[in-house]
Parts: sequence; structure tokens; C-alpha cells
Amino acid sequence: MNRPQEFSRYRHDIEVKLRSILDRYRLPLYDMIRYHLGWIDESGVVFSGNPGKMLRPSLCLFACEALCGDCLKALPAGAALELIHNYSLIHDDIQDNDEERRHRPAVWKIWGRAQAINAGTATKAIAGLTINEYKSLGLDPQKILDMHLLLEETVLTLLEGQFLDISFEGRTDISMDEYLSMIQKKTGALIAASLKAGAMAASDRPETWEQFYRLGMTMGAAFQIRDDILGIWGSAEVVGKPTGSDIMKKKKSLPIVHLFLNASAGEREFISGIYDKHELKNPEITAVIGLLEKKGSRRYAENLVRQYSAECLDLILGLPVSDEYKQELAGITNNLSKRMS
Amino acid sequence: MNRPQEFSRYRHDIEVKLRSILDRYRLPLYDMIRYHLGWIDESGVVFSGNPGKMLRPSLCLFACEALCGDCLKALPAGAALELIHNYSLIHDDIQDNDEERRHRPAVWKIWGRAQAINAGTATKAIAGLTINEYKSLGLDPQKILDMHLLLEETVLTLLEGQFLDISFEGRTDISMDEYLSMIQKKTGALIAASLKAGAMAASDRPETWEQFYRLGMTMGAAFQIRDDILGIWGSAEVVGKPTGSDIMKKKKSLPIVHLFLNASAGEREFISGIYDKHELKNPEITAVIGLLEKKGSRRYAENLVRQYSAECLDLILGLPVSDEYKQELAGITNNLSKRMS
Repeated sequence: MNRPQEFSRYRHDIEVKLRSILDRYRLPLYDMIRYHLGWIDESGVVFSGNPGKMLRPSLCLFACEALCGDCLKALPAGAALELIHNYSLIHDDIQDNDEERRHRPAVWKIWGRAQAINAGTATKAIAGLTINEYKSLGLDPQKILDMHLLLEETVLTLLEGQFLDISFEGRTDISMDEYLSMIQKKTGALIAASLKAGAMAASDRPETWEQFYRLGMTMGAAFQIRDDILGIWGSAEVVGKPTGSDIMKKKKSLPIVHLFLNASAGEREFISGIYDKHELKNPEITAVIGLLEKKGSRRYAENLVRQYSAECLDLILGLPVSDEYKQELAGITNNLSKRMS
Repeated sequence: MNRPQEFSRYRHDIEVKLRSILDRYRLPLYDMIRYHLGWIDESGVVFSGNPGKMLRPSLCLFACEALCGDCLKALPAGAALELIHNYSLIHDDIQDNDEERRHRPAVWKIWGRAQAINAGTATKAIAGLTINEYKSLGLDPQKILDMHLLLEETVLTLLEGQFLDISFEGRTDISMDEYLSMIQKKTGALIAASLKAGAMAASDRPETWEQFYRLGMTMGAAFQIRDDILGIWGSAEVVGKPTGSDIMKKKKSLPIVHLFLNASAGEREFISGIYDKHELKNPEITAVIGLLEKKGSRRYAENLVRQYSAECLDLILGLPVSDEYKQELAGITNNLSKRMS
């Protein structure tokens, strides 16, 4: 996707920070991380790849700036959260057997699964070490410990979500509650932690931290369901994957969960038959997309996104920040929930 | 192996602590960890399995007791280090394709690789959260942050060692320095961190922490090389794996590294030929063992263990603890470097 316009002012600082963190780690183990981040190619030659959206560190810096006027206080936390996000992507690609990430071979396709597991876990450990930087920045040690706690708890929540997501693969009886709980863990928690960590860097009021956390959870749900919609109906050029790609991968994303819940016995048998196949062909994907439209699964998903976005706006209005920042945050929410890629 | 006699007094406290930590985590994700620790079987039924040596938490509690008389101050750190050790075992089994752990199917053999990756990373995250317990125990926040730093840096060092170990698989030109650096990272660092964390819980003197750290590094080298010897010559009943099992798995352990470095051109070609095969048969294993004996690789490894043990004794003598504890620690070192399993 295009990054929300509002975030472009943080991009440079975040990139410089991430590079300075990784600069301390020169062994070949860490080249896998540099490759994943789009800085080098597989033989170590400097490369200028797509560094990803940087949504999480941008939200972190935004929350901090909105509360205290200085976004840089949130830089170590923001960088740590971006590293957590990237650790999870490196492991996800192994777990989902995804051969490509950001239009390049995934880390495991080049270095093998065993080394890619190391790359992911190392990325997470570096995130933890980055939080420790606050020590030399003079932040209250109690607060740094709270940040460590937030980071580790977020990782556990992410893992619970990933566990659920994988366990959904063999099931056709996933309830909407189960699905929503899964995406809150898998996507919401990290976005919520990003806003909260930014608030922690700026403010000493735990109530404020929690307001930002709740907003992030709701924003995360809207973001993920929009992602689910794009995974089926997104246009290939923009998303970088063919339309219906989530169906091809038999992902149990929200529209599919809705379809299974609302299909007639015959329709359910028909889809189960398709999902039981080893590899899906285009006519089968078209058939599933047709059923999704017929059963209102797309409309249902779009309504949910609208609903979560409206909730976000309510939460934004209650934040202790100036109207200017509220407007910007509303714009970001709008952008995330209507994005085309 | 049998746990050193000296450690039996810590066993109960460590087990109770680990169980109370895991009790907080009830989702199925965490059942994989309980299974790995030998507490339940794969369907969740209570089981009384082999919980492993608990070497690391025992060393942690020992260092603490030796310095301040109260081993319990080190309990959260010791539990965290045991969890780090177990996270690495869960991932190692996936990476090495090892189907068994402690005479039971490895986690990945039951839940699959994708979920086992989650189980390992979750175990590591819980270790980090366990360090945060010191907050409510009133330990100086700065010191808790130092413990977080120690934990994350140890994990990175472990990963660097694991990266090297895996990268050795395809090589026959590993130097002795490379090998020793690998085991210091892969085995030494965690044992060193265990002694250091125990010292941190007991004392405010960083010089003392570092003395224990150095001892742990040296002890770790002796321990790992003894492990390498047992992996080839250990008797099957005691170790639980057939003699020559490391050769069967084509592990580049110390005796093999020595053999490759000291073989004649003809011998090297012969061994390379054997190691190139997909699966090794008994006569081939016997041939490699014969060459190891002929080239003095076993004697070389045994001498190294003796050398590292002697260094340990020197380091023990310099520790600021009573003679009684020095004697006990010397006994532990002796036990670790002469153990039969």
C-alpha cells in the first residue's frame, strides 16, 4: 500500500535508526535480516528494496508527537516494534510456505528454513535490546521495564494469534468470534502496542497509554479485514498478487469464514470439496468468488471495516491531544480502511 | 546424565517455580511447552516425564547461594534461563530434523514445524516476562534491566552459535578456532549467563558477575566437548542413543573436526566420501570411529576437556566465596567433565 501521507515525515528518522541498530551486528547471521529489510541482496551487495509500510513505528512516533510535541522520544520503541513486525514476517513465511515477500524470495527460500528460524528469532532479540537504549537516554527505569513487558506480552499475543490462524487451516467451522479474536491477537496487538509505546515515551499517565492501546486494537481489526478484502478482490497490479490469491492459498480470511457460516448444506459441501483439493484452478477460484458475492460475504466484510472505523473515530475524539492531531489520526484511519493495497 | 549430586537441593524449588510460571498460560499454544517439559502427554493428560538436567538454573541458584547464602533470590532468573534453554531445544529439533527429545517425539513431530516454531518463540518470550517478576520483588530496576540485557544478548550469542553450527554442515574445512568459537556461543554463553545471573541476584559487584561469567564459558567448553565425546563413544544404554550416533547424523563435532584437520589426503577423501552419502551404515560408522582412534582425535578431545577443567579450577579458586562452595563447584566441574551421559 501507499503509506498514509501523514507518515512521510517520520520515514527518514525511522530508516536511519533501524540502520544504525543493525550496524552493530556484522556476522552473516544478521545479513539475513538486512536482506529481509531490503537493504542488501542475497550476496550482500547493497540493494534498494521496498522497506515495507513502516506502519507500526510511524504510529508509535505519531502518538508520541501528538502527546508531547517530540516524536524522537519514541524512536527506540518504534524501531523495536518494526523489528518485532519483521521477526513475525520472517517466521510467518516459513510457517505459511510463502516463497515471496515484497516481490523477492523470502529469507527461507534463500538460506533454508533452519537458518531463517534463526534470522527471525535474532530480529526479535535485537528488538528487546533496542528497548534497553532508553537506559542511556535517561528514561525512568520503571518505565523501560514496562516497555519490556509490553513488548514480550505483545509477542506472546502475536504467537497466540498465529497459533489460532494455523489451527484454522484444517477447519471449516470457525465462528466469527473465533476469527475476530484471532485477528485481534495476530494484527491488533502489535498496532495497539505501537500506539501505546509512543504514548509511554511521551506521557506518564497509564490511562492515556490504555486509550491509545484500545484505539490500536480497533484500528488493527479494520486494517486486517481490509487486508482480507484486498486478498480476494485487490487488483493484481496494486497488491502485487493475483486477485483471489488468498483463496488460492486457502486462507481462512474473514469473507471465507462468513461464507462457511452462511452457506447452505449443498454450498458448504461444494466449497469444502474445493478446499480439500491440493491445488486450486482459476475456474474454482472464480466459483468461490461468485459464492462470496452471492452470500454477501464481501458486503459483510466491508460493513465490518466501516463499523470498526467509526469506533476508531469515537476513540480518537476522546484522546487528550489537540484537534489538529485528532484530524490527522482520523485521516490515517480513513486511509488504512479504504486503502487499495 | 545424572545431575551432579550437589544440585539435588535446588530441584524441587526450580520445578515448582517453572510450573507456577506456566500455570498462567492456559491456551493450547502453551500445551506444546508443557509437553516439551515432560508434564503432559500429547493429548494433554498429566505425564511424568524426564524434565532434563536443569543444569542451568541449578548453576544460577548455586552462584547466588554461594555469594549471599540465599539461593531463592535467583529463582526467577534461573527459571528464565531454563526456559531459554528449552526454547533453543524446541527450535534445534526442528532445525536438525531430530525426531526425538528425551525419549519422546519432539514437539514438531506432533504439532508440525509451523506450530513448533511458535512454541519455541513463546517459551523465549515467557523467559523475558519471568525476569520482570523481579519488579515486584523489589530488586533495583537498573539491575533488572541489566538482566534483560544479559538474557537478550545471550539469546543472540546462542543464535550466532546455532548459525555457525548449521553452516558447518556442508563444510569439511572447519578450523579448530572456528569450532571452539561455535561451542562457546552455542553452549558456553548460556551456562555463563546462568552463573552470572545468579551472581547478579546476590551481589552488586560487576567484577564478581564477570568472574562467574568467565567460569561458565570455560565450564561450557568442557561440558560441550565431553558431550561430543559421548555422542560418538557414549554407551547406548546410558546416553539413550547408539554409539556413533553423532557420526550417523554427520555432526561436525570436535573429534570429527580434528580428524578432518589431521587426516592424510587419502583418508580425507575416504571420510568425505562417507559423509557425502545420504545415509550411513554401521560398517561406515565403524570405519570412521577406527580412523578417529588412529588419528588421536579421541585423545585430543579428552585432553581438551582436561585442560578446560583445569582452567575452571583456577577460576573457581579466585571466586569471592567460601572454601566449602569452592569445593562443591570443583566437584560439579569434575562431574560435568567426566560424566558418562
